[in-house]
Amino acid sequence: MPAPYATPEDLRTVLLDAGLLVQTRTDGLYHRSGDFEGVLQGVERYAAEQRTDATAPRRWFPPIMARDDFLRTDYLRSFPDLVGSVDVFTGGDQEHKQLLAELEEGRDWTLALDPAEVVLSSSICHSLYGTLPTGIPDDGLLHECCGFAFRHEPSLDPARMQSFRMYEFVLVGTPAQAVAHRDLWLQRGLDSLAALGLSVRSDAANDPFFGRVGRMLAANQLHAELKYEVLIDLTEAKPTAIASANYHEDHFGLPFGLTTPDGEVAHSACFGYGLERITLALFATHGTDVTGWPGEVRSLLGC
Amino acid sequence: MPAPYATPEDLRTVLLDAGLLVQTRTDGLYHRSGDFEGVLQGVERYAAEQRTDATAPRRWFPPIMARDDFLRTDYLRSFPDLVGSVDVFTGGDQEHKQLLAELEEGRDWTLALDPAEVVLSSSICHSLYGTLPTGIPDDGLLHECCGFAFRHEPSLDPARMQSFRMYEFVLVGTPAQAVAHRDLWLQRGLDSLAALGLSVRSDAANDPFFGRVGRMLAANQLHAELKYEVLIDLTEAKPTAIASANYHEDHFGLPFGLTTPDGEVAHSACFGYGLERITLALFATHGTDVTGWPGEVRSLLGC
Repeated sequence: MPAPYATPEDLRTVLLDAGLLVQTRTDGLYHRSGDFEGVLQGVERYAAEQRTDATAPRRWFPPIMARDDFLRTDYLRSFPDLVGSVDVFTGGDQEHKQLLAELEEGRDWTLALDPAEVVLSSSICHSLYGTLPTGIPDDGLLHECCGFAFRHEPSLDPARMQSFRMYEFVLVGTPAQAVAHRDLWLQRGLDSLAALGLSVRSDAANDPFFGRVGRMLAANQLHAELKYEVLIDLTEAKPTAIASANYHEDHFGLPFGLTTPDGEVAHSACFGYGLERITLALFATHGTDVTGWPGEVRSLLGC
Repeated sequence: MPAPYATPEDLRTVLLDAGLLVQTRTDGLYHRSGDFEGVLQGVERYAAEQRTDATAPRRWFPPIMARDDFLRTDYLRSFPDLVGSVDVFTGGDQEHKQLLAELEEGRDWTLALDPAEVVLSSSICHSLYGTLPTGIPDDGLLHECCGFAFRHEPSLDPARMQSFRMYEFVLVGTPAQAVAHRDLWLQRGLDSLAALGLSVRSDAANDPFFGRVGRMLAANQLHAELKYEVLIDLTEAKPTAIASANYHEDHFGLPFGLTTPDGEVAHSACFGYGLERITLALFATHGTDVTGWPGEVRSLLGC
């Protein structure tokens, strides 16, 4: 089997040479080929098929979300370097003329713009919480969510895209329900990805919190074992996380006013399949030509 | 058949009440339900099946694109009010502390951000041109493209979303090849959408150019019959365009340096299926319960 490659750049070269990804003028921003997208859509369907409850609502989100909801997530405090804020033009003819003059003279024309009521979504489940009923029922609330996330971290590692999709299973409920959801899904995730022929394992992990304070937050998250990642060795440089299982404690329940029937602040947990990264892992493991993949894998993905 | 509804707001109410769309706190921004997305993905597959050339490359784009390529499209000159520019934070601990202080005091924290090397994509085919070889072959270059577009036009009309997907067939070649592509696809588009039970017709149209100068550009576009739309009456208020066929002349060939074998600037044309709008039209025409739709329509969409 081809993986692991020596470096992320080697894997990237293989994918570009095979035409599975098309490079743009921006690092970390790729066009997906028909073959790549065919596998990715198969992974999306396969992830959805792992559901435990066929009655749970499913939501596909646009790649942007309400700025007010985003600010409630406190993402700006923990990961400011990854955020994508959206600006728009609200002026008239005269302001437009000035804007074009700034552009033509090579000055920063974006100074004429105003913050929009939307931002790019940094995580899929962020879009969900503001639309939930604040009273969470006895059994908790389970949702499936899919959409694009933006992270501003230009990189030559093809697994670190600026814009990528996840398929998530999100539960809001009591602390015990949230932890049970996280643990159940970590195992389901491992099993379902191993069934695709991927050599996966899990490990406790931390998010890339920003700055000096962030180093402490990361250590705390790791120590409390709030986050687990599903890892695979695509390169010899470092393992790649292709899915993650997260217990958020009251991080979302508190700002969004979600409460359980006992009047306590709701806790939440999510398991996210990283659709581009799983697709990359499949190509790295089984080769760049889908027709040569094991029949059972193609059958599971319907591709 | 339910459509046409009296007003766009009436159609919106029907879709929200049926749970097909979920309202967010921002006008024109919706979550798509599993049923809605199931039909939309069927429309995407169906649009792709209309292809005339199975060897044409297919590209799925992320919802953002390189700022440099965006500026070349001149979209900022013609539609500044629709643009979404992306800002990011590039400071350190000290600047982050200041940013959070601005946020907490209710001031504009986005002033601390810088323009990213990416913007939201305003149209699907914009992402394509900067990645093409500049020498266009004799037969022209045909691509299929799919992705999200952003248009900042908050509205209560569910057909006017801020973020939506299109599936496009784009040809770059000689003027004659581009016009022929536009005309061929206008008819293919009409026929394929009529086969889904949609009462469609075509008409010459213009884009919503901005401001005083824009009114003249719109009149010119209409007069030159560069743009045709596939229209359907979902409401009694106004027809809804669910697809469009566009001849761009040298609008993209010139700034992206694309030339035909005779040394002339390449022209281009595209036909775009509006995936959300076609999905809305199907629900408005056949009802909100997919299981009650005509069998042939469900069969064509695989849903």
